[in-house]
Formats: sequence, C-alpha cells, structure tokens
Amino acid sequence: MSLNIALAMPSHTAQAVFPPRILEPLEPALTLLGREPIQNFTSPAGRSMLAQVDILLTGWGCPPIDDEVLDAAPRLRYVLHAAGSVKHHIGTACWERGIHVSSAADANAIPVAEYTVAMIILANKHVLHISRALHTSRTQVFAEQLFPAMGNYRKRVGIIGASKIGRHVIRLLSSYDLDVVVADPFLSAEEAAVLGVELVSLDELVTGCDVVSLHAPSLPSTKNLMDAAQIERMRPGSTFINTSRGELVDQDALLERVERGDLYAILDVTTPWVLPAESRLYTHPNVLLTPHIAGSLGNELERMASSAVGEALRLSRGEKLRFPVLERDLEFTA
Amino acid sequence: MSLNIALAMPSHTAQAVFPPRILEPLEPALTLLGREPIQNFTSPAGRSMLAQVDILLTGWGCPPIDDEVLDAAPRLRYVLHAAGSVKHHIGTACWERGIHVSSAADANAIPVAEYTVAMIILANKHVLHISRALHTSRTQVFAEQLFPAMGNYRKRVGIIGASKIGRHVIRLLSSYDLDVVVADPFLSAEEAAVLGVELVSLDELVTGCDVVSLHAPSLPSTKNLMDAAQIERMRPGSTFINTSRGELVDQDALLERVERGDLYAILDVTTPWVLPAESRLYTHPNVLLTPHIAGSLGNELERMASSAVGEALRLSRGEKLRFPVLERDLEFTA
Repeated sequence: MSLNIALAMPSHTAQAVFPPRILEPLEPALTLLGREPIQNFTSPAGRSMLAQVDILLTGWGCPPIDDEVLDAAPRLRYVLHAAGSVKHHIGTACWERGIHVSSAADANAIPVAEYTVAMIILANKHVLHISRALHTSRTQVFAEQLFPAMGNYRKRVGIIGASKIGRHVIRLLSSYDLDVVVADPFLSAEEAAVLGVELVSLDELVTGCDVVSLHAPSLPSTKNLMDAAQIERMRPGSTFINTSRGELVDQDALLERVERGDLYAILDVTTPWVLPAESRLYTHPNVLLTPHIAGSLGNELERMASSAVGEALRLSRGEKLRFPVLERDLEFTA
Repeated sequence: MSLNIALAMPSHTAQAVFPPRILEPLEPALTLLGREPIQNFTSPAGRSMLAQVDILLTGWGCPPIDDEVLDAAPRLRYVLHAAGSVKHHIGTACWERGIHVSSAADANAIPVAEYTVAMIILANKHVLHISRALHTSRTQVFAEQLFPAMGNYRKRVGIIGASKIGRHVIRLLSSYDLDVVVADPFLSAEEAAVLGVELVSLDELVTGCDVVSLHAPSLPSTKNLMDAAQIERMRPGSTFINTSRGELVDQDALLERVERGDLYAILDVTTPWVLPAESRLYTHPNVLLTPHIAGSLGNELERMASSAVGEALRLSRGEKLRFPVLERDLEFTA
C-alpha cells in the first residue's frame, strides 16, 4: 500500500517552489493528497488531509507542527522540509513522538557555496576593483601595478566552520590551485584530511589567509566570533567574506579596518539586516554588499523541493532518509 | 650526462616569472647555465650559453629563434615556453630543424577559465546587478522582484570553442547543477560526450543559453563569429561573456542589443584593446568591462613557469613532453 503525502505551506510558496514538474515524480510511488497545500492545520480541508497523511512535505511558512496537529494526524511519521532550518515548525512535540524529520539544508547550502567560491576567485585577482578602475578612468588600466599580489595561484583560503556550506565551499575549491585551511572546534584533523584540507586554529586561519570566509552557524557561542582582535589579525590586502550572519562579526571593528584601506569585505549579511542609509559600508570602495542573496533564491528553490521529493521517493522504496535532522543536531546548526 | 638548460627572455620577465623557488627543482637533474637569462642571442654571453644549451626555457619577450640562433646552438633540441602562444619566437627555422616545442598554454588557460566560471555563477544570479542596486538605493532590495529568473539551478550555459580554455571551463562547471552545451566545428559528438557536455550548432547554442561564453581562437575564420544575427538570437535576459578577442564580436551590434536593455555583457577584451573614453560600453549598467586580466597575471605567471619547469624535469627523466606544440596546431590555436 502506497504512502499518502501532502504539502504543508502557504499557497504562494507551493506555487513558487513545487511547480507540477517537481511533484510529478511522486506518483504513482506515493499517493499525493491533492496539489493544493495544507495552509492551515485547523481548517476542515487541513484536518481531512491530516487524518490520512503519512508524509508531510513542508516549505517556508509552514505553521508549527504541535501536539494538536499531531493528534489530528495519527498516521504521520515523516516531515520532509523543502528548505533549510526546521526550527520554526518542528519542536518538542515532533521529537517526543519520534517523527522522522529531513531538511533540504544541504541543497540550500549549495548556492551559498557557489556565491562564495565565485567571490573568492574574483577577490584574489581583484577583478571587481580593477573593473571599477577601468569604468571610472575610461583609459588604460595597469592591473598588476594596482595589485602586484593579484592572482589565484597557491593563495591561501580560510574556511571558518566545516558546516554544510563550508564543506560545499571546500568541495568546489578542490578544483582550484589554492591552499585551503579550515577552523572548526568540532572537526578533527583526520576529518579535515578526509575533506582534503588542513585543520588550523581560528587565530592561525585569520592570520595566514588571503581570503577568510565565514560559514559558522549563528549560536550564542559564535556571537562576535570575528571580534576586533581577529579582524586586526587579518593580512594586509586580504578579503573577508560573510554569508553567514551579521552577529558573528564585530561590524564596527570591520568597518574601521576597511577604512584604514588594507582590508576588503564582501558581505551578504549585516547587522542590522538592512543597514541604515548613512552606513559607510554602502559607500566604501573596498566593501561589496549584497542583500542576503547567497542562499537559495529564484530557480534555486526548486533544488530544495527536488531534494525533499527525493527523500519521499526514498521512503516509498523503503530506504532511509538521506538528510535526516536529529534533535541533538539543532544545538550546533542554523 | 645531464642536459644543459638556460633561460631566454628579458631580465624583468625572468625576475617576475622565475623566482629562485621555481628554478630550484631543476637541479641537480639538469644543469642550469646560470640564473641570468639570455636577453640577446647575439651578445657574447648569449652566444656562449647557446653553444652549450640543450633546452631553452623561454618567456614573454624572448627574441625570435631563427636560423642564425639555431646555427649558434648546435645542441639545442627543446624550447619550453613559460607562456601561452609560441607564435612570436618560434617560426619556420625551428620547425624545419625538428626542434621540440612545448608551451604553457594549458596553464595559461586556467585563470581564464576561473574568471569565466566566477562570472557565469554571478551572472545567472545577477549578484553584481543586485549589489549595485543595494549600494545605490541604500535601502532594502527585493532581489527576486528585480530578477525573477535569478539562480544557478539547471540554467543552460553555452561554451563556444572546445579550446584549452573552453575545456577548463567545462571541467570547472562539472561541479555545478548547470546544463552545459558546446559548439565547435572541430569537435565530434563523441568527444563532447567524453567532456560530459552536449555538442550543438552555434545557432542552437546562441539561441538556447542563459550564458554564452566565447572561447574560440582569433583566426581569419573566426572574425565576427558573433555577428549581428547571432547577437540578435540571444535569449532576453541572457549574458554574453568574452575573454577571447574583441574581433570575434560585432561590437556595435552587441552594444545596440545591450542598450535595448535585455542583454548583459561581460567583456575582458574589446575592439580596440583600450576603448575610447566616449565609448558607451564604459557607462551602460549592463556591461562589466575588465582590461584583459582574465589570463595569467601576478602570481599566476608562476603556474606557467612551473609548467615549463615540469616539462624540463620530464625530459631529464627521458619522458615525453606533456604539452607539445606541433606546427600543424598553430593554424587552429592562438
């Protein structure tokens, strides 16, 4: 007998993330209880689907799955989330009842890693600074005179955090002639060697790298991880990339070092989320800001949906989840 | 008996490209006839080195190796060039006498491919356009509203030319979830399949891709390869990247299409090499110019030098050259 599966998320999310071509592979292996998502677990339609469902495919904006929802869903055993963090809708009730949870955090990590690697390559060669010099001067630009140390051959890149994103960055960088080091208090030297990189302390990483890229989760223990002392340690001429969270960085110290002229910053996240109009981060030529776009956006949402659909198909074949989320992981992840 | 090897290039090139750490591996397997390069083949010092040399390591600015030079170098059998094209200093005299030639064109292709892949990833996601919108507006930017089709999942990328550079681009792109197609009149469908990409016609490539990247050599047959008709065929919202040569593109037609607002251009090369100050390519927001920096610069010159040194070490072990250049190749390559 095939398992019953239903979507649970706002209608606009389902339309954007689960177009028909993404859902097609589900049938006939599973029974999809309608293409319309459960938007509200207390509505009659929601109750009716909950009564039959074995697997919920959830997306951004899915309401919390609490005891009341679980009481109405006696067959529910799996929640497959088509986005990164499950902290918003999965809580104690699910863990206590042994609901199996999976997330698309790994798929969500890929675009962040892709953004990061592109920025590392352009940063080591100062491509965007040279481009601006050309557009501004409208005459011949002698790139090596502007940036004698330019280039991507055997530069040293430091990855703070062997998170899902950090590991995808390391994977992509393995195709380049770069020395990659990683700092992570939960990683052993042996695990780093398996990843093909060297484990170093945070101090050593920050001191010795041409690019430092931050991929640690935002937790009480990582707040201000890049404090004024670490920012001061960075090599003259080096680049700091943050696609993680603003609160991991002492932003005032970063700006001060940037304004001294010997540090470059590429920031997809800041504190606050939207900077005030008068922030000098908008105007300093050595700062490149993007508005939290490194993660999945546009067609990249489909990758997360495909990942969740892949999990459902695994269940239909009696296989284990590929990207399970365990309660104890949540302490160390986003 | 070990082979004698000497450098031949201007002194400033040798200093920049062959620092001591690059030359060290040569000895004792080979006998390096001094760390100073032959700058002039007719000087007494040059003549003295030529009389003994088996292998010349050449760099940018090496004078032509003609019959007179070869007459003075009775033992010379190998010329290992630490740069891309050998057309400037290797001519009929070398080919007629059976001198074996190697180049670092493959090593030189790597930074071009790295630049290209970084630009492809940022272009598909419109990262730099969104960044500019943020720096300009200094307020919240809704990226998906600006660029609903943004993202790097399953976008189609077209590589014109399975050249050394084109192949390195294809290799690097294999780590991404992108559909890659290639157009090259000298490539078979089977060879394309080995590269892991699909061979299509130039028309089909230009019509169907989200990014079109040009990696064909500049030859009489490729002049104006991207003519007005091809530029017209490109998808609305797509990006054209040129790291090859300006003369392969109808630049007026490209600018006209860009000014219509539905095409993006990333140009590392233009016609002329330095655009006049009044060129609208400098000012249109959908054009990103760089001053011919995609190729080896800065520390990337060392990769080419290491490649040439590697060739010399192969010869010292009685092995074949890894990157031989044959006279018949020159018709089809840069």
